[in-house]
Amino acid sequence: MAGGGHGGDEVILLDLKVSMFGMRVRVALAEKGIEYEYREENLAQKSQLLLEMNPIHKKLPVLIHKGNPIVESLVIVQYIDEVWRDKKPLLMPSEPYQRAQARFWGDFITKKVYEVGRRVWVTKGEQQEKAKKELIEILKTLEGELGDKAYFGGEEFGFVDVALISFYPWFHAYETCADFKVEAECPKLVEWGKRCMARESVAKSTADPQEVYEFVQSMKLVVGID
Amino acid sequence: MAGGGHGGDEVILLDLKVSMFGMRVRVALAEKGIEYEYREENLAQKSQLLLEMNPIHKKLPVLIHKGNPIVESLVIVQYIDEVWRDKKPLLMPSEPYQRAQARFWGDFITKKVYEVGRRVWVTKGEQQEKAKKELIEILKTLEGELGDKAYFGGEEFGFVDVALISFYPWFHAYETCADFKVEAECPKLVEWGKRCMARESVAKSTADPQEVYEFVQSMKLVVGID
Repeated sequence: MAGGGHGGDEVILLDLKVSMFGMRVRVALAEKGIEYEYREENLAQKSQLLLEMNPIHKKLPVLIHKGNPIVESLVIVQYIDEVWRDKKPLLMPSEPYQRAQARFWGDFITKKVYEVGRRVWVTKGEQQEKAKKELIEILKTLEGELGDKAYFGGEEFGFVDVALISFYPWFHAYETCADFKVEAECPKLVEWGKRCMARESVAKSTADPQEVYEFVQSMKLVVGID
Repeated sequence: MAGGGHGGDEVILLDLKVSMFGMRVRVALAEKGIEYEYREENLAQKSQLLLEMNPIHKKLPVLIHKGNPIVESLVIVQYIDEVWRDKKPLLMPSEPYQRAQARFWGDFITKKVYEVGRRVWVTKGEQQEKAKKELIEILKTLEGELGDKAYFGGEEFGFVDVALISFYPWFHAYETCADFKVEAECPKLVEWGKRCMARESVAKSTADPQEVYEFVQSMKLVVGID
């Protein structure tokens, strides 16, 4: 990760509208009320700036702040929370054990929901059936962790909510590809999703489910699945 | 993750001597001078306590502090740094951009060195040759990030050093299984490894390379590789 430290105070986000990882960063920036320049990338032809700013992974999203690149979505969310710690809300809890739990669940969501969710739409037949069952198990685990709380951290929208809400617009694509309804399996999790979507910060920072579904359909063509 | 919050101030570590993830936690505890009860687990027969304390992943290491379980090695290291922040050294840098970089590299090491290193010893022939080349590339990337600094964060031993030094005792097993020398490829990284090993906290918290090699040999039998 290079980074000259130039570039004044400006905040630039290299991103892709439907990216669940990008949505996390957009939600965090919106929650804090940070102005930034949004630059949509083209996966088929990544910009020179993206390749320079994220030479290791060449992946989105990349936040560029004062000329310095920050990558990996939950690293970026923590960075935003720490740099603008005077701006409410604080996304990370203040108590070390709660922070550790938040990081654990953030990591769990990144690894499990992403990877199993991907298998739900790239596979077919038996493999898809298996992936669907796994995804439902994962979502039930998350619903169990949510319990009767309004948000994962309690009464306030926070880090784990940011980590997971970015997958909510993907539910429609998962459901349509594998013929099931998350709401029938995890009604409380869907209630939580709606509660989050009612926040202006979340509503304006997340992609439309239909747009995500169309992206998935176009990606299926690219990877050769009908 | 359950956690009753009982158990006084005691610190218990459920661990496996040769685990690179466990070694991270032991190094962090040793750096801070925290006393703890070490409990060696048996992978073939995990303890009831482990299953209760890490029901999601059932993996090691697990730190139990005041009766609360904390899992995922780098989550634990950050927890240790935050709970005992009055004890020097501070492993995480204080500046948000440096913290983001530390988290990025910690994550990179966890994903890449572990996964590719594993392929170096579980595969043979062409696959092993490919894994070896990949591992060398990854180590060169890390050596490039180290540059001419004494430690990854600069003059002081810190978070990224903790994340990576736990793989250093594994180099011997990688080298022996795939017939190469890390020192010939990445001399500065090996110098850094020796520098870290000269710290008492690291020396006393890490497994012997021969012991790691023997563990790898026994695991090969378990997974059916001669």
